[in-house]
Amino acid sequence: MKFARFEFNGNEHEGVVKGEKVAVMKGSFLDRYEETGTLYPLSGVKFLPPVVPSKIVCVGQNYLGHIEEIGLSVPEEPLLFLKPPSCLIGHQDAIAYPRDAERVDYEGELAVVIREKMKDVPEDEVMKHILGCSCFNDVTERALVTGNPFMLTLSKGFDTFGAFGPYVATDLDPDRLELKTYLNGKVVQQDNTKNCVFSVKKILNYISRRITLYPGDIVITGTPQGIGPMKPGDVVEVEIEGIGRLKNSVTNQ
Amino acid sequence: MKFARFEFNGNEHEGVVKGEKVAVMKGSFLDRYEETGTLYPLSGVKFLPPVVPSKIVCVGQNYLGHIEEIGLSVPEEPLLFLKPPSCLIGHQDAIAYPRDAERVDYEGELAVVIREKMKDVPEDEVMKHILGCSCFNDVTERALVTGNPFMLTLSKGFDTFGAFGPYVATDLDPDRLELKTYLNGKVVQQDNTKNCVFSVKKILNYISRRITLYPGDIVITGTPQGIGPMKPGDVVEVEIEGIGRLKNSVTNQ
Repeated sequence: MKFARFEFNGNEHEGVVKGEKVAVMKGSFLDRYEETGTLYPLSGVKFLPPVVPSKIVCVGQNYLGHIEEIGLSVPEEPLLFLKPPSCLIGHQDAIAYPRDAERVDYEGELAVVIREKMKDVPEDEVMKHILGCSCFNDVTERALVTGNPFMLTLSKGFDTFGAFGPYVATDLDPDRLELKTYLNGKVVQQDNTKNCVFSVKKILNYISRRITLYPGDIVITGTPQGIGPMKPGDVVEVEIEGIGRLKNSVTNQ
Repeated sequence: MKFARFEFNGNEHEGVVKGEKVAVMKGSFLDRYEETGTLYPLSGVKFLPPVVPSKIVCVGQNYLGHIEEIGLSVPEEPLLFLKPPSCLIGHQDAIAYPRDAERVDYEGELAVVIREKMKDVPEDEVMKHILGCSCFNDVTERALVTGNPFMLTLSKGFDTFGAFGPYVATDLDPDRLELKTYLNGKVVQQDNTKNCVFSVKKILNYISRRITLYPGDIVITGTPQGIGPMKPGDVVEVEIEGIGRLKNSVTNQ
């Protein structure tokens, strides 16, 4: 199943994707829902971030090639940081290039969406707490964080720096998915989540032993090698096997 | 005015403090409300964190004495980080000492609660977007962050590491407030917010130009000199002029 959140004629809905259409639901895919019978064409909706999280937990330095390109070492435990929910935009929304930014990078990532409260969840029970997977672009002002690691939050926290969607896809193995990032149609990142330092099970067990996760929370699992800058006018896409392709343009603020 | 959020007989309420009692309200102090006429004794309620924020934005290294004691330099711009809303506890709740923690510190801080959406707000308009001020204990696992600045989020993000309350007090000048932290009744931090590197106006202008703030969001403004470790069994209090005293005990996880 693929779930979406969207606006149609100014009204907000959740729905199930059926080919080129989306079936509107009553209730929420995070809880109970039923289809209303109304179908809209996907080409006519405005996509929203699929969920409204209480937090976005991010894992840094989780692919070997990326660790090498930024010149850091392989972490012994997952390195966590947060993005503020205010940074989220949906599929086809614009990433706003901040006024005084020096270098704004794409970072294609797999996002995992939590379905049930997770506190102290053992690795072998992690999967049943997950709703599904989505695409995420962890947009980063690289110059800020290179100069001072205490700027990590700001470098990743600007409004529009979290592109997310278009769908949450269920029934995937999150540790075995092909991921590609395209800049203006050209592949710039390509890897498989099986090459992560920490698996999704390990990451969610690690987080849930320290920080309780709630329904709708998002965990993004790191970016592979090939990060690079974008400029206003560029189009960036993050594509993950079994989910779809998240597309955003870059505009001046 | 002083606002509180609390439970009484298992029901959640917001209210206005009147001496030793709290007047229950309909609606919310973040929006419209009216008093219902019901009063409860403050001594009989269970305090909750006064608001449920969409994010908690924190300012690091904002008092000269503290910058010196941690051996860093005076920042040119506010240094921001986030705490997850899942870390919040209320007045009289327990701070849980994590299983593998090495050194868990108190950090008494002034918290500012946002009343209206803030995006690109000039310094001289900041104050009218603020609901009021509260006390905050920005609990920190010091050993984690000393070893690796990329561990800053985790070091401050554990469940129960954000003690907040008891009240949101309106009509205060946030840049002129005495702040004291007590450990087992003894004063361990004492300073005035007038000694901050960045004023509340400067901080909120700086944030709102990059990260939109929403009603109920919390901004905590840094801790003064005198940070130090706590252990299970300790009682820690943060007292700010015009607000009150936030009291929490430390327990084993």
